[in-house]
Formats: sequence, structure tokens, C-alpha cells
Amino acid sequence: MANNRVFNFSAGPSMLPLEVLQRAGAEITNYNGSGMSVMEMSHRSKVFMKIFDDTQEKFRKLLNVPDGYKVLFLQGGGTMQFSMVPLNLMGATGKADYAVTGHFAKLAKKEADKYGQTVDATPMDAFTSIPAQDKLQLSKDASYFYYCSNNTIEGTQWQYVPETNGIPVACDMSSDILSRPIDVSKFGLIYAGAQKNLAPAGLTIVIIREDLAGKELPITPAIMNYQHMIDKDSMYNTPPCWCIYMLGLMCDWLESQGGAAGIEKLNVKKANMLYEALEGTKLFQLSAQKEARSFMNVTFRTGSDELDDKFVKASVEQGFTNLKGHRSVGGMRASIYNAMPMEGVEALCDFVRKFDKEN
Amino acid sequence: MANNRVFNFSAGPSMLPLEVLQRAGAEITNYNGSGMSVMEMSHRSKVFMKIFDDTQEKFRKLLNVPDGYKVLFLQGGGTMQFSMVPLNLMGATGKADYAVTGHFAKLAKKEADKYGQTVDATPMDAFTSIPAQDKLQLSKDASYFYYCSNNTIEGTQWQYVPETNGIPVACDMSSDILSRPIDVSKFGLIYAGAQKNLAPAGLTIVIIREDLAGKELPITPAIMNYQHMIDKDSMYNTPPCWCIYMLGLMCDWLESQGGAAGIEKLNVKKANMLYEALEGTKLFQLSAQKEARSFMNVTFRTGSDELDDKFVKASVEQGFTNLKGHRSVGGMRASIYNAMPMEGVEALCDFVRKFDKEN
Repeated sequence: MANNRVFNFSAGPSMLPLEVLQRAGAEITNYNGSGMSVMEMSHRSKVFMKIFDDTQEKFRKLLNVPDGYKVLFLQGGGTMQFSMVPLNLMGATGKADYAVTGHFAKLAKKEADKYGQTVDATPMDAFTSIPAQDKLQLSKDASYFYYCSNNTIEGTQWQYVPETNGIPVACDMSSDILSRPIDVSKFGLIYAGAQKNLAPAGLTIVIIREDLAGKELPITPAIMNYQHMIDKDSMYNTPPCWCIYMLGLMCDWLESQGGAAGIEKLNVKKANMLYEALEGTKLFQLSAQKEARSFMNVTFRTGSDELDDKFVKASVEQGFTNLKGHRSVGGMRASIYNAMPMEGVEALCDFVRKFDKEN
Repeated sequence: MANNRVFNFSAGPSMLPLEVLQRAGAEITNYNGSGMSVMEMSHRSKVFMKIFDDTQEKFRKLLNVPDGYKVLFLQGGGTMQFSMVPLNLMGATGKADYAVTGHFAKLAKKEADKYGQTVDATPMDAFTSIPAQDKLQLSKDASYFYYCSNNTIEGTQWQYVPETNGIPVACDMSSDILSRPIDVSKFGLIYAGAQKNLAPAGLTIVIIREDLAGKELPITPAIMNYQHMIDKDSMYNTPPCWCIYMLGLMCDWLESQGGAAGIEKLNVKKANMLYEALEGTKLFQLSAQKEARSFMNVTFRTGSDELDDKFVKASVEQGFTNLKGHRSVGGMRASIYNAMPMEGVEALCDFVRKFDKEN
């Protein structure tokens, strides 16, 4: 790859486009004639506020966020949202439905149990599939319905937005945010750690229907109060300025790729290419059921731990990194987020076919 | 200034040394032959773990952190610690003493009132001074004693560590961390948002005596549990990797300045120079009482709002930024943290004297 860079299949933090990094590097000591790095700017200065506002606008445009929704730039990642969602939304009835289709949704449910009563809306034996709409077990008195649209570890992805009869839908989109167009109006709340598809680690994006905020439990820490953050336009405290700036650059790049619809086409093409390559081998098995396959995280295995190890080791020699599966499930995982170039996936497909022939 | 950079007197985020920014820029697309930017690295990869571990070691060495204390790299800034401190430490007796000597200590106390009973250990009419040890009103049954070592807005600074008869001392060092040597063993817990003296916004450093963790209230959000973070070595969730890397570069730079003792000498010299320049004028008054003056944030005013405005406007033309005082107190504030070069303070002194003569 250009500049001696590697194809990095990390599940997150993960690749950023080279041109985005180069642009950040070019203005790292002096942003746009300001005489300062973005890392040095007061978050309340005019020059940073313009970066902040422009990034908000670009992000809203790319994801087509309608009026009545606020976009917040916070810290703490998905883990903080695991607490923040129930602390703010559980108050309505004290109950919530959780679609536990993967490891992180399970953690989110466990955390929510501290603040209310949760029900598993999708009981399953193994995290290899996504239930269809008519299989969802919905409570009538849930404060909200929670799901994770893409299960990073398991490599499964929801290909529809659940219909919940008016109960607000809260979604963890950490690993597929802005990888495809979505209809934001179907959601009460969307959140995403930015470190997979959009920016370096340290920024969490929240999109919240404004009427849902302001009903937090009294024990809610100030920094976890959505209404505070809405009132102060994400500046209740110092925001992660550099990551917000990087998100802005990434939004420009996504725009150049044809926006959400354009990047979806590329993402689908990359994922299909890799799934087809893997299906064409004798050696590899895919971990997720076909209709639940993720277009972001492709999970596969040989069935032999030794061969899996051999594959991972050989892949590193080939200039690929982070193809080892999550420690909780083993096997391999190729994370192919927005910034993974087509040639990275092509190179991996070639490598998969070669390894299959030789083993 | 070199490279058309400005002297940035922002209270935070604030200046970083040019050589630190240049080093970050030089390796922004490919860190140390890894083929990746630090922004793209899996936080669990060997290459990032080495950055993480080295930064921990450098930081511990610079601040002379003794055994029995853990250094954590978290997110959320001081605002998150306002909640995290009481959620984790209040459990012992349900009560805590707060030395309210400034705006941020006041906010911290207000937040702690959610989780226990707090007492103001330093009642005062105006935030222009720091009480002496024998004026502290200490409770016998406090779970901890809390103070903010440097009041960023008011420009006052504690020049001693309170003696509390065995009650753990929790300190917000956000605006003077690593600006001088400290005896860490006098503290139960120290925290600091890194964006003033040490790194870009998005990283919070916590130094905690290990025996104090593990006693959190049951309602504590998982991400706010110090014990979780100790157990997982700050990797309970994805840490703010880029900011940690920048902190490492900053530690190298501090070492080159003679460590904590070396930078203290420079900081004292810079502050004394500015205080003397201001005292030598007819026009300017210093906002803080002499014995409580901060070596980080120099607050001053003319007594006339119009002249204050004129000063700030003229300073911008001179290539200085962010000299306007905090909106809650008015006047002027020059924040002269570690990375503010001597020539920046010299230039400001010249400007102060010139403005005094002309007005």
C-alpha cells in the first residue's frame, strides 16, 4: 500500500483514509491561518466553534437528520451510553426491552438492570443470527426498545429497523454508523462511538429526539444528562475537540465518496466480495447465518485453532493486521469499515484463496 | 513567533510545544514504521500497548508516583470526576468536606450533594484567597476532603497540601498538574483534565491510592467505577488513544525541560515576571490576593469594562489570543501553562507596559 501503510482490519479503533490523515498532518501546527493547532484551541473560541458547527452541519446532512433531533458530541464511548440510556430514558415506566443479539447488547442490558427492569426481547442460544420482526418479544409498557444494529464481535447486523408500536427505539450504531443511509425518524435515540467508521477514539455521537430528554433519574451524574448536553450544545464541559475536527474531515471524505448512499454501495461491494471469496473455499466457514451477515465485520474460521493461528500469522507477514477474532469467540474477523479501501479487501480475498489452496 | 503561530493564553485547551506538534505531525500517517497512524491503532495491539505503557511509566516518573498508587487514563474531564469522586469515595461515612475556593470546586460540591452530605470546609465571601491550614473547618467523620489546587477562573492557587488527620485528600489538579513537583503520598486521589498543562482535550488522568477503590455506591455507572478501571488497566472500554500518545510526547518534552522541578522553575519565573509587570503599572489591578496568586492563571483588570475591552482587542492585534477573563468574573486572564514559552510572557509584559503608558 502507498506510504508503506498496512491494511488494518482492526475492529476499532480502525483505519482512516490516508488523505484525511495527510490533511490533518498538514495543518497540525497551524490550522487555517489561526496560528494554532486544533489541539490547542479554546473550545469556546470562534475558530473552534466554526469547526464544531460545520462538523455538526456536515454530519446532519450526511445522515439526513431531521428537525426535532439534536446531534451531541460526547465522550465515554458505548460504555458510557450503556449507563446514560437507562439513566435518561428508564424513568417513563421503569422497564425496558433489550434485544440481546450480541456481546455488547448483553453488557448494555446488564448495566440497565441497575436502573430499572429489563426484558430480553430476543432470547437466543447463540449470537449467530438476527431475529425477524415477527419474532421480537415486545413489552407493552417498555420505556424504550434497545438494540445494537451491528454486532462487532459476532459479525451479525440488523438489516431492518424494528417496528415497536410507538415505543422509542434506542440503537447502538457504534460499528455501522454512516456506513449506509438510515431513516433517523424511526429512532428515539442513536449513539455511536466514533472510532470504527468515523474518527479516532474519544468521541461519541448521540442523536436524540429532543422530547425524550429531560426525564433523567435524580441520581444521574451531570455529565450523563442528555438535557444538560442539549442545553449547552455539547459544551457542558470541554468536548474532545481534536476528534470532532477529525470527524469533520471524515465527513468531507464521505461526501466525496457519494455520501451515505455512495459509501453503502462501496461497503456492500467490499463485503460481498469477501463473503464470496470465503464461500468459494473448502477451508473456511462463515460464523454468521447468511441473512444476518454484517457488512462491517466478517467473521470466519477454519474449524481448527491451529490453522486459524497459522492464517493470522501468515496474514501479518502479508501486511495485514488485526485479523484475529475477538478473544471471546476465536476464529478470524475482518473489519472492513468505511475507510478500508477496495484494494485492501481485494488483497485479502487473494490471500484467502491462496491460503485455502495451500492448506 | 515561529511558523506564524500565536501566543495563546487560553485557559484550556491551551498551547502545546511546537516541537511536540511537529513530532506528532511527522508520524501522523505512519507511526514508527507500524504502517498506521496512532489514531488507527487497536487499543489492544502491541504497538499501542507499548505507547500506553511507556506513557504511564514516563508520567509516573515525572510526578514521582509511589507504589500503591494507580495511574488511570480516562475520559470525561473534571466534570466526570465531579460525579466519580463521590460515587466511589462517599460510601465510607456518607459525608465529605469540600474546600469551596472557586467556581469548579463549587460545582464539584453541588454534584456530590446528589450522593451524600457535603460540608463547605472553607466558607468565604469572594474567591480571591486561599485559607491557611489553621482556618480549614475539618469534619471528623468525612469520607474524604476535596479541594481544587488551582482555581482557573479566579487565578488563585493552593501553595500547600492540606493536612487532614488521616482523612483521604481528593484533589482536582486540572490546571496545575505537572507544573511543579508534588508529594503524591499526601493524597488519596488526584485527577486532572489533561487539556491545560499536558495534552489535547479528551484525556483525564486519575492517580488513586489503590485501597480507596472498590467501595463505590451500587448505583455507580460501570464507566465511573475506579475499581473496574484499575482491574482493566484503563482499558475497560476504548481509551482516548491519540490523547494518551500526545501525553507521552509531552512527557518527553517535560523531561527535556528538567522534569517537574525544571518546569516549576520556568513557571515561577514566567508568573513572577508577569505579576511584577502588572504591579509596576498604574492601570492594572491584580484580582487575587498576593499569597494566593496562581502561577498558572494570572487574573487582572483595569477597573473599567471599556478599558478591559480595549486591552483585549489590542492584544489580539498584537498576536495574543484568549486574554479575556472568564465570562463569570470579567477582566483579563493570562493562562501561562507549561507550554507557554518565556518569550510569550515577555511579549505580554512589554504589551502591558505599553498599554499602561498609553492609557
